[in-house]
Amino acid sequence: MLISSAEIISVGTELLLGDVVNTDAAFISRRLAALGIAQYRQTVVGDNAGRLEAALGEALGRADLVILTGGLGPTYDDLTKETAAKLMKRSLVVDERTLGRIEARARAFGFEMTENNKKQALIPEGSFILDNDNGTAPGIVIEDFEKGKLIMLLPGPPSECEPMFHEKAEPYLRRFTSGVLVSHTLNIFGLGESKVESILREIMLASENPTLAPYAKDGEVQLRVTASGIDTAECERLCSELIERIYSTEVGKYIYGIDAGTLEDALVRELIAQKKRIAAAESCTGGYVAKRITNVSGSSEVLDGSIVTYANRVKERFCNVSRETLQKYGAVSRQTAIEMARGVRELFGADIGVSTTGIAGPTGGTPEKPVGTVFVGVSADGFEEVRELHIGNGLASREKVRYISASNALHLALTALAAIKNNSKEFLS
Amino acid sequence: MLISSAEIISVGTELLLGDVVNTDAAFISRRLAALGIAQYRQTVVGDNAGRLEAALGEALGRADLVILTGGLGPTYDDLTKETAAKLMKRSLVVDERTLGRIEARARAFGFEMTENNKKQALIPEGSFILDNDNGTAPGIVIEDFEKGKLIMLLPGPPSECEPMFHEKAEPYLRRFTSGVLVSHTLNIFGLGESKVESILREIMLASENPTLAPYAKDGEVQLRVTASGIDTAECERLCSELIERIYSTEVGKYIYGIDAGTLEDALVRELIAQKKRIAAAESCTGGYVAKRITNVSGSSEVLDGSIVTYANRVKERFCNVSRETLQKYGAVSRQTAIEMARGVRELFGADIGVSTTGIAGPTGGTPEKPVGTVFVGVSADGFEEVRELHIGNGLASREKVRYISASNALHLALTALAAIKNNSKEFLS
Repeated sequence: MLISSAEIISVGTELLLGDVVNTDAAFISRRLAALGIAQYRQTVVGDNAGRLEAALGEALGRADLVILTGGLGPTYDDLTKETAAKLMKRSLVVDERTLGRIEARARAFGFEMTENNKKQALIPEGSFILDNDNGTAPGIVIEDFEKGKLIMLLPGPPSECEPMFHEKAEPYLRRFTSGVLVSHTLNIFGLGESKVESILREIMLASENPTLAPYAKDGEVQLRVTASGIDTAECERLCSELIERIYSTEVGKYIYGIDAGTLEDALVRELIAQKKRIAAAESCTGGYVAKRITNVSGSSEVLDGSIVTYANRVKERFCNVSRETLQKYGAVSRQTAIEMARGVRELFGADIGVSTTGIAGPTGGTPEKPVGTVFVGVSADGFEEVRELHIGNGLASREKVRYISASNALHLALTALAAIKNNSKEFLS
Repeated sequence: MLISSAEIISVGTELLLGDVVNTDAAFISRRLAALGIAQYRQTVVGDNAGRLEAALGEALGRADLVILTGGLGPTYDDLTKETAAKLMKRSLVVDERTLGRIEARARAFGFEMTENNKKQALIPEGSFILDNDNGTAPGIVIEDFEKGKLIMLLPGPPSECEPMFHEKAEPYLRRFTSGVLVSHTLNIFGLGESKVESILREIMLASENPTLAPYAKDGEVQLRVTASGIDTAECERLCSELIERIYSTEVGKYIYGIDAGTLEDALVRELIAQKKRIAAAESCTGGYVAKRITNVSGSSEVLDGSIVTYANRVKERFCNVSRETLQKYGAVSRQTAIEMARGVRELFGADIGVSTTGIAGPTGGTPEKPVGTVFVGVSADGFEEVRELHIGNGLASREKVRYISASNALHLALTALAAIKNNSKEFLS
């Protein structure tokens, strides 16, 4: 069978109460679009068997594939599996392999194997199982090839749902889609989505294969280039042609990588490649920069230490920011930022020092320096720079100010590494 | 009329493509819950008149109030208003006051008043208007008191939707609600969801008012107690009775707060209350503890500085962990953890020092110390403790190991503060 269209049903009273934002649906939708599977409707229902059964029945009437997320947990109000099995007239049977995996996980995580956990090993007979490497509830596909219908059950927690969909569900679904799809993502920093769109509008409107889809994510813009064709080689060729065109536009110089992952991934990769070490002195980001660098496995190769310098006395003592600078220009200033960057580089004997100092809010803003005023600095051998940021002109949340500030620190370090590389090239040539 | 239940229909192809996360639905849902308006289903449809009309018709069959967000923009694919008007058999008429407001906004923001903007001043005749103070599209309520149905149209952008709902829609909706709903959340750390549920199962099944709903969030468990009644006092009384019962169970000692928010919120609040300062020495969490503490506005009152001590030489130099300890027990050990906690407390002159040292993975594990082996320490005046964690035994992601480790550091600091408080009480008594 070929899947022509899908629907997502998100199950969970917490969604209807607004306690949780439905990020699973957005994630799965992006992936379905990349698979070329159309989607015309999504539904959210609570942990209620009757209403879930009604919604599932309606969705099956409209779509070939219905993906349900949530309600696979161990507690009594988790009834997605039971409801789907009932509707498809499948009895629940213990899947020994899944039971073994759950027991192993219980031992590993040192939690007590309750009857509720055992319930998670019950599978509608004849189902296809998607192993859960990040939790106890397995993913399940109830297949009805006669009617040409598939019901896919996925766990709700994004930490389980996203990797399972990406690693287990997508390879499964590809059997039911035609042709090959190849996707590449251009990672862009420092240019807004609408600016990117206005620069690339002509190219976007003209692009049918590959398609070109921009989306803004955590203050960055990603451009997804997706080509479809008979084989991978053809798709890759189509993608690279379009990617070259994009590089030739004004957008080009804001691209920091292709399929580069996050800024921190790209930074750690480049630090390792150049055998450089980094340290951060963080005021307004309070550890966010170091946290993001150390998100990356292998970051111990490039970071020995880092410091949060919230109080001025700490800035003075550890990064030896001069008292004069603090008094004359204030802690939130270009001068303080660069002294912090130099100081922390010295403190840990790093090749690159980055710094952040600013007003994260919601309080602490002044007419001269409103919330969102942040200075981000970098100091490296032969390269120093400070960026002055005005994030959200007073309207941005504390989290947003801190995240964007950290992103700029990471990007500024990448910029320094690029400059160092070019200098050494020039030096060699 | 009284509104017994509502549904939300989110309109926008960008939602079905996953380019946008549906935060409007979560926001409105939280507010509806606070208003005591039940919600049993949510729907997302694209910018397609036929499918929108079908979804709206179905929703009106189930609920008294249907809230639609999105599709009120000026462009051709915005057709929510036209579709709703058609279904309710209302013709569109120009609302002069709204037209005036749009013209005024165009002047204020210096954009050209297009025919499309004028289209935004068209209102289904006899509708109630919710002024838009943050954009051009007004909110609209199509009222049918005979059938007891309300259709509310809201703009999609959260910057317009959220303030409009809060400031304009809620006062309007209060006319159609009776009674009150009061909700409290018990914050639990150190006990899994299925364990909580198995302990409280009897109470949960017996509880109809207040209701008791558990859910797991970021490695914590939250228990939501929701009571309905004629007034707040009655609801509060019902809630506190149930909360007392829960405290009397085995779950009680794992509750770290009521409506406490996150662990970091609770910690910063308690630090401020006790006028104490904290500092962290972080190895495997690499800044995550400091980052989470400084998530909280006002944390500058309780944190002067913090340090990431990834390399051993940094642990020695800044937290003066003895070389003997590092050689004899290794960096990932109970002894190193406590020396780090003592050392960082000294380094920044803090009242409480916390530390983390462990193997975050995916690499670096050994048979004796597999990935997920973490020691978390705390040192305070008269209170020291080290927790040995075994997170996932190689199965947990790096992010999970780091997050759970940071959570334990925050929780250990709360434990220390509680001990200090009790000691001083005993001392006084």
